[in-house]
Parts: sequence; structure tokens; C-alpha cells
Amino acid sequence: MRVDTLYGPVQQDLSLVEEALTSIKDVEFPVLGDMLALALRPGGKRLRPALALLSGGFCEYRLELLVPLAASIELLHTATLVHDDVIDNAELRRGQPTANSSFRNSTTVMLGDYMFAHAANLVAQTGNIRVIRLFADTLRRMALGEIVQDMAAYDADQTVDSYLQRIGGKTASLFSTACEGGAIVSGATEDWVSALRDYGYNLGISFQIVDDILDFVGDEAEMGKPVGSDLLQGTLTLPSLLLLDRSPDDNPVRQLFAHSTRREYLDEALAMIRDSDILSKAAEIANDYGAKARRALEVLPDSPSKRALEDITEYVLERRT
Amino acid sequence: MRVDTLYGPVQQDLSLVEEALTSIKDVEFPVLGDMLALALRPGGKRLRPALALLSGGFCEYRLELLVPLAASIELLHTATLVHDDVIDNAELRRGQPTANSSFRNSTTVMLGDYMFAHAANLVAQTGNIRVIRLFADTLRRMALGEIVQDMAAYDADQTVDSYLQRIGGKTASLFSTACEGGAIVSGATEDWVSALRDYGYNLGISFQIVDDILDFVGDEAEMGKPVGSDLLQGTLTLPSLLLLDRSPDDNPVRQLFAHSTRREYLDEALAMIRDSDILSKAAEIANDYGAKARRALEVLPDSPSKRALEDITEYVLERRT
Repeated sequence: MRVDTLYGPVQQDLSLVEEALTSIKDVEFPVLGDMLALALRPGGKRLRPALALLSGGFCEYRLELLVPLAASIELLHTATLVHDDVIDNAELRRGQPTANSSFRNSTTVMLGDYMFAHAANLVAQTGNIRVIRLFADTLRRMALGEIVQDMAAYDADQTVDSYLQRIGGKTASLFSTACEGGAIVSGATEDWVSALRDYGYNLGISFQIVDDILDFVGDEAEMGKPVGSDLLQGTLTLPSLLLLDRSPDDNPVRQLFAHSTRREYLDEALAMIRDSDILSKAAEIANDYGAKARRALEVLPDSPSKRALEDITEYVLERRT
Repeated sequence: MRVDTLYGPVQQDLSLVEEALTSIKDVEFPVLGDMLALALRPGGKRLRPALALLSGGFCEYRLELLVPLAASIELLHTATLVHDDVIDNAELRRGQPTANSSFRNSTTVMLGDYMFAHAANLVAQTGNIRVIRLFADTLRRMALGEIVQDMAAYDADQTVDSYLQRIGGKTASLFSTACEGGAIVSGATEDWVSALRDYGYNLGISFQIVDDILDFVGDEAEMGKPVGSDLLQGTLTLPSLLLLDRSPDDNPVRQLFAHSTRREYLDEALAMIRDSDILSKAAEIANDYGAKARRALEVLPDSPSKRALEDITEYVLERRT
């Protein structure tokens, strides 16, 4: 699956989204322009904007509404990454210096706020109150997901269900909104809007599970962050939750959370997870959500957009970065 | 001027805004509810919501639109205060523990984002795209003002003009939007919309200048922060800019910014400012903006709302906290 043809019929139109994003950094204040350029540098997969454009391809494909919508979705995503960098003091993200490693914490917070403002302005350009409220509600769910994750840090007593709910807010809600928003502005019927919302949500869950698996097996250089970084930050994800399920008491994760500076517990947990079938179990669960996403599409007519959305589910499950 | 009758015809309706704000903290996640309750605790002056309601009193007073607008303005204000606490590590704000002193930095960032999301949802309830875009643009200007202030920290070579522009973004833009938004949703003519926008902007400038004066003379207990805190954080405000204008070279402010740990330079700067006519000069400038605000109202018909807006300019100039 090659990412440069993955987005099928909207591949070309994504350059308009890129232009909309690029224009944001043309500001009167050069240092801010540099910060925005760093945060918005091309090279990301632009998966969420592609989902918005593709979901707009089933009725009236209204590029003048879909481009600001898609750009607002990507900006909202990037703004939360910027704020995330404040949160976990991540040294690297996508293998590049984070906004936060180049600038003060305080400036990074305001940079994220500035990007939220632009995102809100872009989504308002759709002129669609329903989409605007969806956008606001998505930010609310994303922030709530992050707060819940923060509050649960270093707590070894969590369930897979709470994990799914958390990543539903933190990640899947924006995938869902990209698709639902695209469907709404193109004038899709409620059946189709609902189908694309479900597709996006399940795709988002599978995307995050794969992300969380890659944190255990990924290549540090390709991923741009150290292996096991979630556990180091006290965050339980699906693999470590499955490990805790199997050995609830004498478990290196529990030890690590109790003594967070003891690196040997991390190594032990990583080894136990890798030497078991936990990662393939987790991948199965990701596949199940990918299958749910594909099934949600069944109600939609066959078309290049639909085939691209189907291909994306495979890409998300097979990706290695 | 008593604050409990200051808002005249909208005094009662402010309780509806308070209810809208209170309802936000009824969330499924109790710890978040506690954080929101702390950030949104009653006792603030609720000046910005009052401005929105009063500005809606010149045409059709549509409470069902004005209450969500006013609540969204106050939430946006409070969210930026929450993010501000991350920024300057303020130990106290309004004499109460800040969100940040009770919770982790990361959680505080997300709490602010969560509040932005609610604010965006509330403003979308007006159903008015123009007001929504105004809201987004205001957040952009506020964040930009904070970024510029951050970038200029400990830089002694700034002008009064750049200060006025900075506080225009950071503070006056939201006052302006409260008034302009209220006028728009009540169906005011463009003349009146423009008058109320100008009123709000000039009132906001005078408000911030008074705030900055109080930082030099205020009572630490009443203000809830130490005297001279702006200078300590490397922020030039009108009084220190006037002092720099008078003695550009051999100046304790310049020394303080070069050696920020040397408390004696702060004391010297504070003494020089207090022993001169600088604070009364600064107060004159605040008065000028207050007068501009009042003049902007001249085009509006006499009414209880207009009289309340006039009274507010006096209150803002005379306040001691």
C-alpha cells in the first residue's frame, strides 16, 4: 500500500488543503510564522484531511467547503499535538524537534491556542452550524480523553473498556468528525452520515491500537520516540493491559508504576510482552475494529471514494510508522 | 460605584449566565467537575458577560441568544486565565489557588482546551456565523497578544505603541467582542455595532492600563498577587515604559531585566515610579481611553443599558482591585 496513491480521487485536492495550512503561517510576526511552519511542516500523512475529502465524495463534492473543513481538522489535530508536547515533555515527535523543545512551555501553549483559533475560523467558513458544533464537541471529547489519561497515569488498575473509551475520545472522535463533517457538508443523507461517522470512529480506534502496538515494537528512529515510552509515562495501552490481565499481581508493569525510575521493570515488561502472543492478540483487536470500519461502509454505493476508504483501513492496520 | 447594582437592567439576567457556567461542571468525571468548579467559581465580576447583555439591549433583547454568548465570552476569558497559569507559573490568581497550583501542568492545559470547546459550543448556540467567526478571531488575537508578550519578555527596548497593540489583542479584543457580539445578535444596525465594538475596545484598553497600574500600587492581599509581578516576569507595562522613556539608559528596569534575580533593582524601579508622577500620567492615559469609550456611545439612544455602560467606564477607572 503506497501512501502517495492511497487517497485515490482526492490525492490532488489535498494540495489545496496543504495550501490552506501553509497560508496560516503568513503572519505579520515572523517568529510566530516560524513556529507555525515547524508545527505544520509538510510530510505528515494528512490522513484526517483525506478522510474529510473522501467522505465528501458520495453526494455533492463541494471543494470550497471541504478544503476549509479538512484544513480545520488537521489544524485541530496539530494544535492538540502541540499541547501534548507541553504535557509529556516529549523530546521528539515524528523524529523532529517538538515545538516545545524549541520554545518556552508558555509560548507553546499559546501557539496551540492560536492554531485552535484558526481551526475554528476555518470550520466556520463551512457556514454550517451543525459542523461547527460537531467540531466544538470533538475538541471537548479529545481534551476529556487526555484529562482522563492524565488522571489515570501510573494507575495499574484499569480495564480494556476504559482504554477503549479513552482512545475513543483522544483519537477516534477526530477521525469520526473528519468523516461525518465531510458527509454533512456534501449533503449526504442521515444514513450515510451515520455510516461515515461509524467508519471514522472504528478506523480511529484501530489506528490508535496500532500506534500503541508500535510503541512496543517500532523502530526508535522511524517512530521518532523511544520504545516503551507509553509505559515510561505511566500510560497503560492495550498490550500492557493484556499483560496485566494475564498476571494481575506479580507484574513488572505494576512494579514500574510503583517505582517509576527503575528501568529494569520496563525492560522486563517489554520482554514479557514481546515473548508472548500479546501483540498478535492486540493486532487482532485492531483488525476487528478495522473490519467494523469496513462493514460500516457497506451501505454506501461503490465508488473510487469508497474504495479509497477501504484501502485506508488496510493501510492503517499494516503501517509500521 | 457599587458593583452589585452596576449592571443595571441586566443585573438579574446575569444569574442565567451563572447557571449556564455552573451547568458546565456537571460532568460524568468528578475530578474534572472539581477542576471546572475551581476555575469557574462565582465571585468574579463577570464584567465581560455583563457587557454582552447590555450591548444586546439596544434592539431586540434576545436572552436565548445573549445568555450563551455571554457565557461563552466568560468561558473563553477563564480558559485563557487557566492557560496563563501554565505560562507564568503564577502562584495565586484572584487570591485563590490557581488551577495549575492544584493540578499538573499538563492537566491544566487540557482543562483550558476543554473550556475552549465548551465556549465554542456555546457561541455556536447563537446560530450566527458572523458571531462565531468573531469569536474565533478574538481567540486568535488574544493568543497572538500573549505570544508577542512572551517573546518580548525581558526586552527593555519596547514602545508604548507596541504595548497598546499587545494589550489590544490580549485584553481589549475580548471586551470589544462581548459588546460587538451582543449588538449583532440583537439585530443592531451596523452603526451601532461599530459604536459598541469601539466602546468595548477602548474600555478594554483602559481596563488593562488600570490593571497594570494596580500591579505597582495594589494591595497584595486584595490583588492576589505580589506587587511588581509584571516586572518580575519581564513584562513591560505602561508605568515601566514611561519610566524607561524618562531615563532610557541608566534605568533599574534595564538592570533588572539584565540580572533578573537582583531584587534590589525591582525595589528601585518601584520606588522611582511611585515617587514620580508616572502613575498619574498612566492614569490620565487610562482616562483618555475611558473618555473614548464614552464618546463611542454617543450615537446610541439614551436608555438604562447606555447609562450602565457609561457607569462601567467609571467603575473600571476607579476600581482598586
